[in-house]
Amino acid sequence: MPQTFSTLDEFSALLAQLPAPDSTAKEAASARNAVLTKPPGALGRLEDIAIWYAGWRGEAAPQISAPQVLVFAGNHGVVAQGVSAFPAEVTAQMVGNFAAGGAAINQLCAVAGARLNVIALDLETPTADFTQAPAMSEAELVSALLAGWEAVDLAADLLVVGEMGIGNTTSAAAIALALFGGEAGDWAGRGTGVDDEGLARKVDVINKGVKRQAVASGLEVLRCLGGREIAAMAGAIARARLARIPVVLDGFICTAAAACLHKASLGALDHCLAGHVSDESAHGRMLEKLGKSPLLDLGLRLGEGSGGALAINIVKAALACHSGMATFDQAGVSQEK
Amino acid sequence: MPQTFSTLDEFSALLAQLPAPDSTAKEAASARNAVLTKPPGALGRLEDIAIWYAGWRGEAAPQISAPQVLVFAGNHGVVAQGVSAFPAEVTAQMVGNFAAGGAAINQLCAVAGARLNVIALDLETPTADFTQAPAMSEAELVSALLAGWEAVDLAADLLVVGEMGIGNTTSAAAIALALFGGEAGDWAGRGTGVDDEGLARKVDVINKGVKRQAVASGLEVLRCLGGREIAAMAGAIARARLARIPVVLDGFICTAAAACLHKASLGALDHCLAGHVSDESAHGRMLEKLGKSPLLDLGLRLGEGSGGALAINIVKAALACHSGMATFDQAGVSQEK
Repeated sequence: MPQTFSTLDEFSALLAQLPAPDSTAKEAASARNAVLTKPPGALGRLEDIAIWYAGWRGEAAPQISAPQVLVFAGNHGVVAQGVSAFPAEVTAQMVGNFAAGGAAINQLCAVAGARLNVIALDLETPTADFTQAPAMSEAELVSALLAGWEAVDLAADLLVVGEMGIGNTTSAAAIALALFGGEAGDWAGRGTGVDDEGLARKVDVINKGVKRQAVASGLEVLRCLGGREIAAMAGAIARARLARIPVVLDGFICTAAAACLHKASLGALDHCLAGHVSDESAHGRMLEKLGKSPLLDLGLRLGEGSGGALAINIVKAALACHSGMATFDQAGVSQEK
Repeated sequence: MPQTFSTLDEFSALLAQLPAPDSTAKEAASARNAVLTKPPGALGRLEDIAIWYAGWRGEAAPQISAPQVLVFAGNHGVVAQGVSAFPAEVTAQMVGNFAAGGAAINQLCAVAGARLNVIALDLETPTADFTQAPAMSEAELVSALLAGWEAVDLAADLLVVGEMGIGNTTSAAAIALALFGGEAGDWAGRGTGVDDEGLARKVDVINKGVKRQAVASGLEVLRCLGGREIAAMAGAIARARLARIPVVLDGFICTAAAACLHKASLGALDHCLAGHVSDESAHGRMLEKLGKSPLLDLGLRLGEGSGGALAINIVKAALACHSGMATFDQAGVSQEK
């Protein structure tokens, strides 16, 4: 199987043949978990995470030492419709802030011991306004998917994908409506902080965009309503699957990117955890549609991969316990009566 | 004001004069938070934590670099009533496991970059069976409070207190019933994993213990129904308050210890965060009584300070963002339209 692609059809073909977890490693991890020095199940969700991670890595007792955080930035033609509280130039300004180490994600990566890579995608050329035309051509979509695909460090052992893009909660909400149905108002939120009037405009814009495009296949939704940073996140998530690198999803926009893969290939997100549920109102609803239960619920709504990065240490802790703890026999501790 | 005590009255006197947070530092932290490069409120609860922490530390932009985790171990006479799934010798065996680095808390401290100190309290002399007599004499209680008090590293900038003690969920549930009322069944859980019959015995034992002791003052409840490790946690939490070291509470037993201080002196837990809500059924209810909202909810029910230690990196991340991020002016990023 080729490990890259140059057309959308080739990318679709890769999605149709994604690898499964290693069941032998998973069983060995379960067996190990059962004899560690703790009451059965006492580490709760950390135990499930450790076994899940072991399956994807193909090792009974792995550790996490090289997490990578990828932040993709893109600009959106739809901002012309007045859907954001911040001006579009903030996307490029924040990329500068990432490079200078001044953003939240820089601090969160330091605490998580994670490598941060920021990839700005043609910021000077926004995608088309999706109320007027498909956001991207097929060539533009393939190029953005490839940017994400190629940004994954194959030596990483955990991946967080995040984004920066003024206007992209509108894009993500339109994707959610196209993929999952309902009303535009179910999926539109306040983003970085629009007022009531801005929110009403957002709902209108989302309806217009979704009405324009008839085909509801995952990748077509991504092309017509997405953005370069959203497509790049999807490309990175898919690449991580082929490289058996587990992924921690971030917030609403990242989850919308992931949802396009889910729609394109059921099970495509089996190697992904939901890092958190954000304060963007529809994020929890979208996670439910994907069958994902978030690790954290701290009211974040920043993007930049922030919630995913904050969850890295939880995943790291799960594996540290699983792979570092003594067994009852090793420690000479008595088991249950 | 003396910074130590040798009688219960002296300890009570200290609790009556606890220091408040530094309002100047808190206001400076709020002002700083408002100009950091993020939409207002976008870091959710991390922002509240940073401002709260700044107030206790008396600095506008502090960092966390020296967290301490204290685990106290004690044995309980009440295990004679058959309230635990594990034999009492496991308390000492687990202390050996902590020393050898094989327990969950060892791995969690490594991930959090925290110093771990384990203090075993007269394991060969369990407290009295509280269905027959008060668990501790006044001298024993003072000695246990002091053990906790003295274990706090005054150079620490965050403290987690945890415990190990076969039988201590029964003690904690009895404390909760004595402090907050209701039915024994509201507070009794399965601990390390008792069956239905064991749970029924636990309820009976809790009722007997609470009936024996009439006075419901916080410290008297701690003496009659607590244990050495529970009292030591209370002593450490109080010492941290005087030293302006914020505390992250762990699970059900730790919270019961904290609740005795809360009952003795309203506001005594203002310097404490709830690290997590455990899977022990009554923990969430006890946190509500204390007005604390947990940072994590991952189904843990291990004790050892595990949930508190897992939350350290969340608090660290909150302060890393608060104190490390650039302002809009510094980064040259445009503000809201």
